Amino acid sequence: MPRDLSPSRLEAFSDGVIAVIITIMVLELRVPSAQSMGNTAALHQDLKLVLIYLLSFVQTGIYWVNHHYLVGDVEQVSHGILWANLIFLFTLSLIPFGTNWVGERGLTPFAVGLYSVTCVLPAITWIVLSTLICRRSGKPLAGSPAKQFASAALYIGAIPVAYHSTSIALAMIAVVAVLWLLPPRRILRETRAASTAPPSHTR
Amino acid sequence: MPRDLSPSRLEAFSDGVIAVIITIMVLELRVPSAQSMGNTAALHQDLKLVLIYLLSFVQTGIYWVNHHYLVGDVEQVSHGILWANLIFLFTLSLIPFGTNWVGERGLTPFAVGLYSVTCVLPAITWIVLSTLICRRSGKPLAGSPAKQFASAALYIGAIPVAYHSTSIALAMIAVVAVLWLLPPRRILRETRAASTAPPSHTR
Amino acid sequence: MPRDLSPSRLEAFSDGVIAVIITIMVLELRVPSAQSMGNTAALHQDLKLVLIYLLSFVQTGIYWVNHHYLVGDVEQVSHGILWANLIFLFTLSLIPFGTNWVGERGLTPFAVGLYSVTCVLPAITWIVLSTLICRRSGKPLAGSPAKQFASAALYIGAIPVAYHSTSIALAMIAVVAVLWLLPPRRILRETRAASTAPPSHTR
Amino acid sequence: MPRDLSPSRLEAFSDGVIAVIITIMVLELRVPSAQSMGNTAALHQDLKLVLIYLLSFVQTGIYWVNHHYLVGDVEQVSHGILWANLIFLFTLSLIPFGTNWVGERGLTPFAVGLYSVTCVLPAITWIVLSTLICRRSGKPLAGSPAKQFASAALYIGAIPVAYHSTSIALAMIAVVAVLWLLPPRRILRETRAASTAPPSHTR
Repeated sequence: MPRDLSPSRLEAFSDGVIAVIITIMVLELRVPSAQSMGNTAALHQDLKLVLIYLLSFVQTGIYWVNHHYLVGDVEQVSHGILWANLIFLFTLSLIPFGTNWVGERGLTPFAVGLYSVTCVLPAITWIVLSTLICRRSGKPLAGSPAKQFASAALYIGAIPVAYHSTSIALAMIAVVAVLWLLPPRRILRETRAASTAPPSHTR
Repeated sequence: MPRDLSPSRLEAFSDGVIAVIITIMVLELRVPSAQSMGNTAALHQDLKLVLIYLLSFVQTGIYWVNHHYLVGDVEQVSHGILWANLIFLFTLSLIPFGTNWVGERGLTPFAVGLYSVTCVLPAITWIVLSTLICRRSGKPLAGSPAKQFASAALYIGAIPVAYHSTSIALAMIAVVAVLWLLPPRRILRETRAASTAPPSHTR
Repeated sequence: MPRDLSPSRLEAFSDGVIAVIITIMVLELRVPSAQSMGNTAALHQDLKLVLIYLLSFVQTGIYWVNHHYLVGDVEQVSHGILWANLIFLFTLSLIPFGTNWVGERGLTPFAVGLYSVTCVLPAITWIVLSTLICRRSGKPLAGSPAKQFASAALYIGAIPVAYHSTSIALAMIAVVAVLWLLPPRRILRETRAASTAPPSHTR
Repeated sequence: MPRDLSPSRLEAFSDGVIAVIITIMVLELRVPSAQSMGNTAALHQDLKLVLIYLLSFVQTGIYWVNHHYLVGDVEQVSHGILWANLIFLFTLSLIPFGTNWVGERGLTPFAVGLYSVTCVLPAITWIVLSTLICRRSGKPLAGSPAKQFASAALYIGAIPVAYHSTSIALAMIAVVAVLWLLPPRRILRETRAASTAPPSHTR
């Protein structure tokens, strides 16, 4: 197999981009500059940002874990997969932008709606990427199609809901995160099989 | 072969730099700080930046994909290739600078001209890098020389054109992106050959 | 073994995140912008930040070295280990936030207490991660449990102590760093064994 | 050989840190915010920063290339080498700080002297790192000791010289860069040997 069709650089590049995305969000946790503001008030203002950051972190973490499982199946990449992956990474890199908007403008309907939009985009590009990869590897999708579309629907639903209640909209986004924190069934099976197999010390 | 002539670290380092370049551009998508500015006006201002960012993202993505194909052919690097690669990465890292200038100063002739300059530089250093690598590996260039020089010419042409119409100048830059979105013919052949070959499960 | 249970991407991703964390802290070493401030005064203000940065750098460096030793034992990751690692990286990424707070607000009791909190969190998540990995690999913990809990206790103790003396609190944090600068006993043994073994030139 | 003594993660982590250092410097090439300032004046102000950035880029590039050659010889790392490498990366990460100081405060004697200090520190930690690695691998130093100490001496000399002439001080720093742009003699030999050997297509 020619080396330029192996998935190793796709993995390395994706790891780099996701690592920067996750740590970029920390960069925005800036110390309130107003020297006059009391310490507790300043920290309180940051805590709200920490919570949104935590939700964004969990979402990005879920994508990384599932990307790891998804690409672990790939024997060989194609031009289409390289670009589907790049577009997925682009949409994922908009999450810090949505996160900062909420952090700076507060939990307004507009801000939470915009944050939901930045959550919808990677959900859609992820469906495209995982469909392309699973068609090539011949294995089933990592998450069931039902779960994939339920997630996208919850994110899209959160956009109008944000104008009635920002708390419900954020709860809908958090529900998706919980849905995906559980490992895919295939991984559970493989892990169980691997841990009951006699230990092999060859690598 | 001595390990210090293998291309693995060149790949890893380039992946790191390109990953940071791509995500650095997101960092500049800052939330408008003026609290007085309405949400829609603030978002509108950002949308223009999102479009320029998208164009820069596509260009950087094209370089990554082609770098992946180009270095995938290398059996062994030389001192000259290491430095040609570093200089290419340096010029590539000027794209976020040009992007931000347009984003902050707006679509003025000067800004678009400067952006074109930051597009010309990596196009030229890429020609040097790919020529050096192809001479060493004995394979033909990833893109035909005609395509390479047409791209450089379009970028250079965009500089004076920007003083007549910024839209035409940006369209010229977008045309180059479209030219390169298609995979090189060699890759198409290899992909087709690989997908018709009986699947091998050895790695 | 399926590739998606191998630890290689966990290593690569952790390297990426820790590399960004370490270099993000440099970003905050900004040149004082007040043109009126004298050079020596400006540098003096930065020097205090350099010292705190140095302490944070040493702590992050210790985690990287021990992460290297810890994951070097892993034959196979599990869903739980992937997430324990992500949560560890999240808590580690709060250290630059604590560092900057001290750097910008000065060595106030509140700032040093907050910095201690950002030191406690990765210490706790590290205990969870290393326990999970060592249970899976069947090897003993890299640091003795006594050392692990003494470190967490010193960090937690530094929080109230900061309200009596910030110097003693910082000294307590520095003591933990010194405790961990020494290599784990197992590594010392392996290194000694490897250096007395006849040199092998196969790789 | 136990995996936790192999140099692969040391390479990956160093690549990550150096990639971020190199691209961080671009981040500081900010668009002048004063809307009133003319385009040419604004660009002129940035050009000076581009030149200093270029010098810092070349220096960092030299360290990466030589790090690549140096670690390519390592069969096995030790606790001491891991820490010598971390300390080298720490000192290297101060170069963007020195670069920005010159960029923001201009070519004053103090700024150029400080920049020279940030050049001396990695030169010294590099001597320590390469000595440790070469003692372990039994191979000679990548650069001759004379070249190593001449470089450190030129950097240290540039500190007082900056108070007489900033141009001469910067020229001294540039001379060191030129000295190191040439590949080490051993690499030249290996490259020549490899290119005259019959091509091997096994990997």
